[in-house]
Amino acid sequence: MTVPDPLDNISIVLVNTKTPANIGAVARGMMNMGLSRLILVRPPGDMHDEAMKLAAGAGKVLLEAKQFKTLREAVADHQLVIGTSRHLTRHRRNIHSPRDAAEWIIPLLGRNRIALVFGREVNGLEKEDLTLCHELIAIPSSEAFPSLNLSHAVMVIAYELFLLARDGLPRDGRTLASAEEVERFFGHLQTALRYIRFLDDANAEHMMFSLRQLFGRARLEPRDVKILRGILSAVAGTPERNDG
Amino acid sequence: MTVPDPLDNISIVLVNTKTPANIGAVARGMMNMGLSRLILVRPPGDMHDEAMKLAAGAGKVLLEAKQFKTLREAVADHQLVIGTSRHLTRHRRNIHSPRDAAEWIIPLLGRNRIALVFGREVNGLEKEDLTLCHELIAIPSSEAFPSLNLSHAVMVIAYELFLLARDGLPRDGRTLASAEEVERFFGHLQTALRYIRFLDDANAEHMMFSLRQLFGRARLEPRDVKILRGILSAVAGTPERNDG
Repeated sequence: MTVPDPLDNISIVLVNTKTPANIGAVARGMMNMGLSRLILVRPPGDMHDEAMKLAAGAGKVLLEAKQFKTLREAVADHQLVIGTSRHLTRHRRNIHSPRDAAEWIIPLLGRNRIALVFGREVNGLEKEDLTLCHELIAIPSSEAFPSLNLSHAVMVIAYELFLLARDGLPRDGRTLASAEEVERFFGHLQTALRYIRFLDDANAEHMMFSLRQLFGRARLEPRDVKILRGILSAVAGTPERNDG
Repeated sequence: MTVPDPLDNISIVLVNTKTPANIGAVARGMMNMGLSRLILVRPPGDMHDEAMKLAAGAGKVLLEAKQFKTLREAVADHQLVIGTSRHLTRHRRNIHSPRDAAEWIIPLLGRNRIALVFGREVNGLEKEDLTLCHELIAIPSSEAFPSLNLSHAVMVIAYELFLLARDGLPRDGRTLASAEEVERFFGHLQTALRYIRFLDDANAEHMMFSLRQLFGRARLEPRDVKILRGILSAVAGTPERNDG
């Protein structure tokens, strides 16, 4: 019997990557660091040859990559969605260094699937995609030239995870709610908050963003989501089975 | 008055790189991590356009790169020469992880220039070049696929140096002997050991390799070299000013 590798529960998710060579270089770096699950959201058409060339011996990672049209679908069956950003945006308190993040990611891998999400080469993740992320990682870099190549960014984070996985941290026994469950909760929350007129068109986006951060940090378990949705139903009289 | 940046005393040395795009990607990764001194030993001809493209905003690092025909010339004015290897070769005990290496490299930067040497894409450093290295760094990677892309390897090591330099370790006040001085010492040593018939054609290469490792670990200062060469002259009657 082989022991399952905790790193198998990490997915590298590339959103809207423009350059096939970068996807190939990511696949290679992943395999160097013991990662194998690659997810592509809206990859470039006709990427195969150039990506395979850069993947070198890691063609398997490319060939087994899953493709999705939206990030939301791509991460639906993951329990934790972590975005990467070089910008320390306002309203964001939950930004971690790769090393600090590895320390709480690795113990969760025993019972949870975790998506690490990387945006397109120049602009990074767009706001709509950042909204789906429960946590953020920013890679320390020189203020004079902070913008990393996509495969370099994946490499640094994968390297930190590999080092720590190799050392073997104690496991965190919790199983978190899936991103899909949590998104349903956020839909329910927004409906409820509009119903009680806490949200209006002027403040909804900003307030929901802050609430997402708050609940993202909370590492919701399925039971937590059930309780919260029960509260929403009770407060607002909105249906508990709201999948918006 | 600006405080000199210790990372200015690190040179990234690429030996015999085949792919211009890799050189560009290295330049970018270097600048992301606060490094600026790039040295190219026998770079590909006509590399400019493709390398500049991959360098993105780090064209300055490429344009200011120095070029040499041999590694020996390239590192002559450096005090410590550190090779990179994915192989844990026999006879090599001084192999460090990037993180451990950063801990002793950063304190030395106040008074010493340190070369980090990377071999060509497929085979890494050749034996002749490894011989010039006082220490080795090997990047931990998956046994299933250990071979890193060149710019990924530079990135991981540069990242570890950047993190530690940012934190600011106490300085090591020693100034070490330059690689040129140390190479002259090794030449003198070899001549002397042949003279006293400790070395012969059968064992010379192997023994000199082991002696290089031994003295590499010792971090020789100029005064140490002078003493050792004085001993050689006294023992063997060989001239102290042997530059072989």
